[in-house]
Amino acid sequence: MSDVVFYEVFKEEKRALEKFLPAKIRARFVSKTVQECGGGLPSARLISVRTQSRIPPEWAEHLGGIFTRSQGYDHLVAYQRAAGKNVACGYIKEYCSRAVAEQAALVMMALLRKLKKQMLSFGTFSRDGLTGRECRGRHALVVGVGNIGKEIVTVARGLGMTVKGVDPRRGVEGLDYVALAKGLSWADVVFCACPVTDKTKAMLDYHVLRKVKKGAIFVNVGRGEISPAKDLARLLSEGILGGIGLDVFDEEHSLADSLRARRADVRARRMSKLKDKSNVVFTPHNAFNTREALEGKARLSAEAVVRFLRRGTFPDPVPER
Amino acid sequence: MSDVVFYEVFKEEKRALEKFLPAKIRARFVSKTVQECGGGLPSARLISVRTQSRIPPEWAEHLGGIFTRSQGYDHLVAYQRAAGKNVACGYIKEYCSRAVAEQAALVMMALLRKLKKQMLSFGTFSRDGLTGRECRGRHALVVGVGNIGKEIVTVARGLGMTVKGVDPRRGVEGLDYVALAKGLSWADVVFCACPVTDKTKAMLDYHVLRKVKKGAIFVNVGRGEISPAKDLARLLSEGILGGIGLDVFDEEHSLADSLRARRADVRARRMSKLKDKSNVVFTPHNAFNTREALEGKARLSAEAVVRFLRRGTFPDPVPER
Repeated sequence: MSDVVFYEVFKEEKRALEKFLPAKIRARFVSKTVQECGGGLPSARLISVRTQSRIPPEWAEHLGGIFTRSQGYDHLVAYQRAAGKNVACGYIKEYCSRAVAEQAALVMMALLRKLKKQMLSFGTFSRDGLTGRECRGRHALVVGVGNIGKEIVTVARGLGMTVKGVDPRRGVEGLDYVALAKGLSWADVVFCACPVTDKTKAMLDYHVLRKVKKGAIFVNVGRGEISPAKDLARLLSEGILGGIGLDVFDEEHSLADSLRARRADVRARRMSKLKDKSNVVFTPHNAFNTREALEGKARLSAEAVVRFLRRGTFPDPVPER
Repeated sequence: MSDVVFYEVFKEEKRALEKFLPAKIRARFVSKTVQECGGGLPSARLISVRTQSRIPPEWAEHLGGIFTRSQGYDHLVAYQRAAGKNVACGYIKEYCSRAVAEQAALVMMALLRKLKKQMLSFGTFSRDGLTGRECRGRHALVVGVGNIGKEIVTVARGLGMTVKGVDPRRGVEGLDYVALAKGLSWADVVFCACPVTDKTKAMLDYHVLRKVKKGAIFVNVGRGEISPAKDLARLLSEGILGGIGLDVFDEEHSLADSLRARRADVRARRMSKLKDKSNVVFTPHNAFNTREALEGKARLSAEAVVRFLRRGTFPDPVPER
């Protein structure tokens, strides 16, 4: 029996976690998701996941706590609903906002400047079709101005852009907040940095996003459910959007399972085809992944585990909704 | 007979030039370089090139003027020396500094965040080996703080970096200038934004650049002759540099000729192999290429041509050295 099982752990993360966990804690590290590990009961009362594990509802009887090593916790809210039993859930309030914001800006610039096509054109040293757009002076709309959105505002301003925000809580001083529809028709680039809730689900679907300025770039570092990939593919093929950059995907766990298992089901095939377009940048939910963020995350995760094992509570419990 | 022949014109550039040139000027547009057009004499007294044409020395007898549609003019200085006759030469003092600086920042971020590997890893939705580095708080060294270098300072600071400069003319107020060797051992990212002169040629070769901090990123948007690709390949393979981003290449015209003609000579093959590495970003001398810069460049080129045809002088003549 272990004290805690960490699922979905990648190499660099394991090293960082081991650095911060006290030696007396018996921790097991698994690179797979819960569902990829197959059936059976949990081998510890405390488990830690990221965002792609689907925890069986019947585990609720055996679990004392679930800790997600992510700023998003929609998957744990959904689990508590499905399990019908209150399992203590914790998350990390803030560890990667800067990392995510910088990746959002990188992907935006890659799309504005047609970086994929530029790299491909090195092979023929041709410049046809490579004219891009500068950041300076362009309009950026940040939908969802929480910790990550706020940092995107900072980075986009640093690149000389004019920025507006969409958020019911108008919490950032000096930021011009607008209604969504108005912002969409104004922006050259739209960033989605929302958590997924009942209100934000499909909030940026085909019918809403088609109001963007023709050729606008859309970058999602929030959650895929807010803006399903098939809607974005349609907006791209109709020439309404000029480029899409996604680090998050709707039904991401099943998509990730298929891709990892090399199961070429219909959706995985469709997404792989889409990712090959020159105006599409797909990354595997990796925007958080910097040395700086990883170090902070491992330290906060170790602290949360130590506290839960000692007192049965998390420093940042998932709020009840 | 035409009034002017524009060589090395790509599609978007032709449209922009036609927009600004007066209708009465008889202009011919050629996508090829001068050498790709084969032998014969020039078909106009005024020709306009970019950076990859090699103009035969014997043309000097027949040419009234040469106008380069670039901020760099080292190739025209070399031509005047080789031709031994004074042909009036003009260039564009400033039209694309922002475009080049933003591309330099984009390529830096792509390397810091392993963007190529991230995109590739979407296919297996794995995060192993994808941990990147943030810009914020990192050290950027700008070697060559002219128009372009100055703009790189602005963009890098906008991204939260600490910036130092290397330049004999310490022209930017508030910028910390350092000696090259000192700057190299301090920097996480080294930008080369120099023109090529007798002094800068091979200035950042293997023996100089090996003094960088281990794992530093090197981005060249100046000229390839300052830092030959084979030296950079060696620094990469020895693990001294952590990534290279090149928009310019030594012996660029012959490399470009080979690539365009699909001649797989030894150098083209070596460079193609190098470009496929995940920590290498090669672009085809395209950092200047934004809508904004293209518009400004076409306007300034048309003005220079009109003035030369009327008065025989250029608004910005290539300085004699």
